[in-house]
Amino acid sequence: MTTSDILLSDLDVNGILRLTLNDESRRNALSEAMLAKLRVKFADAGADPKVRVIVLAAKGPAFCAGHDLKEMTAGRLNEDGGKAYFANVMAMCAGVMQGIVNCPKPVIAEVTGVATAAGCQLVASCDLAIAADTAKFSTPGVHIGLFCSTPMVALSRNVADKHAMEMLLTGDITSAARAAEIGLVNRVVAPEALQEATMEMARKIASKSSMTLATGKRAYYAQREMSLPDAYDYASGVMVNNLLAQDAEEGIGAFIEKRAPQWQDA
Amino acid sequence: MTTSDILLSDLDVNGILRLTLNDESRRNALSEAMLAKLRVKFADAGADPKVRVIVLAAKGPAFCAGHDLKEMTAGRLNEDGGKAYFANVMAMCAGVMQGIVNCPKPVIAEVTGVATAAGCQLVASCDLAIAADTAKFSTPGVHIGLFCSTPMVALSRNVADKHAMEMLLTGDITSAARAAEIGLVNRVVAPEALQEATMEMARKIASKSSMTLATGKRAYYAQREMSLPDAYDYASGVMVNNLLAQDAEEGIGAFIEKRAPQWQDA
Amino acid sequence: MTTSDILLSDLDVNGILRLTLNDESRRNALSEAMLAKLRVKFADAGADPKVRVIVLAAKGPAFCAGHDLKEMTAGRLNEDGGKAYFANVMAMCAGVMQGIVNCPKPVIAEVTGVATAAGCQLVASCDLAIAADTAKFSTPGVHIGLFCSTPMVALSRNVADKHAMEMLLTGDITSAARAAEIGLVNRVVAPEALQEATMEMARKIASKSSMTLATGKRAYYAQREMSLPDAYDYASGVMVNNLLAQDAEEGIGAFIEKRAPQWQDA
Repeated sequence: MTTSDILLSDLDVNGILRLTLNDESRRNALSEAMLAKLRVKFADAGADPKVRVIVLAAKGPAFCAGHDLKEMTAGRLNEDGGKAYFANVMAMCAGVMQGIVNCPKPVIAEVTGVATAAGCQLVASCDLAIAADTAKFSTPGVHIGLFCSTPMVALSRNVADKHAMEMLLTGDITSAARAAEIGLVNRVVAPEALQEATMEMARKIASKSSMTLATGKRAYYAQREMSLPDAYDYASGVMVNNLLAQDAEEGIGAFIEKRAPQWQDA
Repeated sequence: MTTSDILLSDLDVNGILRLTLNDESRRNALSEAMLAKLRVKFADAGADPKVRVIVLAAKGPAFCAGHDLKEMTAGRLNEDGGKAYFANVMAMCAGVMQGIVNCPKPVIAEVTGVATAAGCQLVASCDLAIAADTAKFSTPGVHIGLFCSTPMVALSRNVADKHAMEMLLTGDITSAARAAEIGLVNRVVAPEALQEATMEMARKIASKSSMTLATGKRAYYAQREMSLPDAYDYASGVMVNNLLAQDAEEGIGAFIEKRAPQWQDA
Repeated sequence: MTTSDILLSDLDVNGILRLTLNDESRRNALSEAMLAKLRVKFADAGADPKVRVIVLAAKGPAFCAGHDLKEMTAGRLNEDGGKAYFANVMAMCAGVMQGIVNCPKPVIAEVTGVATAAGCQLVASCDLAIAADTAKFSTPGVHIGLFCSTPMVALSRNVADKHAMEMLLTGDITSAARAAEIGLVNRVVAPEALQEATMEMARKIASKSSMTLATGKRAYYAQREMSLPDAYDYASGVMVNNLLAQDAEEGIGAFIEKRAPQWQDA
C-alpha cells in the first residue's frame, strides 16, 4: 500500500466522485497526510468539469476519528513545544473544511460509522449528509482537556446552540437518529441502504447544470452571512446573471415546452 | 374579471386583512402585476390603523408557483436579452418580500397548496405560517438551470443549512409535515381546518395592542442581525420606550388589577 | 427571612454550585433585589476556582415569572414617569443575562415550573437546560402591551424564527415537550427525575478541566458571531493555545496511555 491509498478516489459515468477515507488502522484520522490529500482532492475536483458531485465516504467502522493524536503528541518534542506544528495542522484542517464549503461542487457525506471531533466537523462542513442508523457523532475533546473549538465552528452552523453546547460540554455521543433530529445530518437509513441512498441523491444532483449548482452553492454561503437587505441585493444580482446564462434559458425553455433540458456541460 | 381581481382583499371587523392570491390559471404566479399589487397592498395595510393582522391566503390548488416563467421568457426578446427586465422583476420581488418583513403588522401565511420557488420564499418571509397537511414546498429552480438564489435568502433564515441545501440542491418536494419539523411552517392542520386555524391565530394577535406588535416585530428582525451586546443595548432601549407608552401602562395596570386592557387604538 | 434568602447558594464536593431562586411569593420574579444578587453570584462563581459548573434552579411552581411588574408600576411615580428607573432595570437584567453567557463556568437551567418573559430569557441564556415535563414557557408581554423585546434577544438565538415569532406574537404557552422540539431546552424528564438529571449532567461536566471548559465556552459564543473565515482563524488560534496548555498535554497523554487524566485544578 502506498501513501496515496489512504484516500481512494473514484469517478463514475454520472460525474459522481467518490472520495473514500481509507486509513482504517488509524480510524481514518485527519493525519497530516490525510489533510494534504483532502485539500488537493477537493481543489482538483472543484476545477475538474467532469466532476459534478462529490461523495465523501469512509472504510471501516469509524467514519473519521478527528486529528491524529499520536502525531500531535510527537509534535510536542519540537523546540517550541509544538506551537508551530500545531498552528500548521490547524491551518491545514481549517483549509480542508473551508475547501469543502468553497468547492463549487455539492459535497455529500456518507456517514457509515463514528464521526468524532474533526471527523464530526467534516460531516458538518459538507453540504448534505446521510448517515447509517449505526453512525455516531461526538465532539469529545473535553474528555482530553482539548475543547473541540474548531469542530464547533462547523457544528454551531448546523445545529441549535443548546444542542451544540450539549455535545461540546459533555462530550457525549449523539446517535444518528438524534443527529437527524437536530439537523446535523439530512437523513438516517439502514447501513445496507446507505451507499445507495447517498448515490441516489448524488445522481439526482449530478443531473442538474453544474453552472447552476456552482452559482447557487457559492451564493448560499455568501448571502447567509449578510444582513437581509444586503443578501437580497446580492442574491438578486446572482439571479439576473443566472437568468442570462444559457443553461437557464435552455432549462426554462425546456420546462415550458415540456421536454428534458440539455445542459451546456453535460 | 379586471386585473385587480388577481389579489383579493378583505378586512373583517377584528382588523384582520385577508389578502388572497387569486390568479388560479397562472397558479398564483408572482407576475409583474401580482408583485405590483402585493407591494401596494402590504404598504397600504402597514399604514392603515384599521388593519391589525394580515393573512396571506390563496385560491386553488397552488398557493403560489413563484415567478411567471412565460413573462420571463418574453423578456428575453428585449434588446439586452432581458437583463434590465430581469433586474427590475428581481428588485420588485425582493421589495415585496422585504415589505412583508418590514410591515408593522404581523403577517400569517395560510398555505393551502403547493408553494414553489418564490412562492416558498413568500411563506418563509411571513412571520408565521400554518399549512394544510396537503401543502407542499419546494425550491425547484435547479431543475430548470435557475438556482433559487433569492428564495434561499428567506429559506435559509427559517431552516437549518442542511435542510435548506437539500431543498435547493435536489429541488425535491418537502411535505407539509416535514416543513413543520424543520421550522418552515409553524403547524400543519387538515385542509378543512386550515382557514379557521389561521383566523384563530389572527384573532388572537389582533386582540393585542397594534403599537406593541409593531414595536416588537420591528425590533425582532433588527436585533437578530446584531451581536449579542448590541442586541441587548438596542432591545433594552426598545423596552424602555415601550414601558413609557400608554398601552403598556394600561396593560400592566389591567394585569395587576385583573381586568381586560383597553388599547388606545382598539 | 433576610433578603439574602431570595437566592440560595450551595456548593457541593464536586464543584457544582446550585443557585436556587427562592422568592416563591413573588413567583421568583426578577426584582431589583433578585437581579442584583444574580449578577453578584454569577460574577463571584465565575471567579471562584472551586466552582466548576453552575445549576440554576428554583423553588415553587414558577421557575421565574420575569420582571416584577409591581416594582415597575411603582417606578412610574418618579418625576420622569419611570424612564430612568426602567432604563436601570433593563440594564441590570441585560447584565445578568450576558453575565451568564460570559461566565467561564457552564450554566445549566433546571426548569421545574413556569418560565415566563424574562424568566424564559433566563432559560434561553443558560448554556444548557433540562425541564420537568410539567414546565411551561412563554413570552406573554404582548398580553399586557409590553412586547418581550429583551427576552427575544435570547429566545431568537435558541429557536427558529417562526417558533420565536409564534411565542412572541401570540403570547401562548409552550409545553416542555414542544420546548425540547424547538431547541429551547435540551431534554424533558419527569418532575421527580429532574434534579437528578440535571445533577448528573453537571457532574459529568464538572469532571472536565475547568480551563478547557472556560476556553471552549468563551470561544463558542465569540466565534458564533463571526464570518466563517474569521471564525476559523480565531478558533484555530484557540486550539493552538489549548494544545499548549498542561491540561491538554495531560489529557491527550492519558488518552493514549489509557488512564484517567489528572487536571491541574482538580
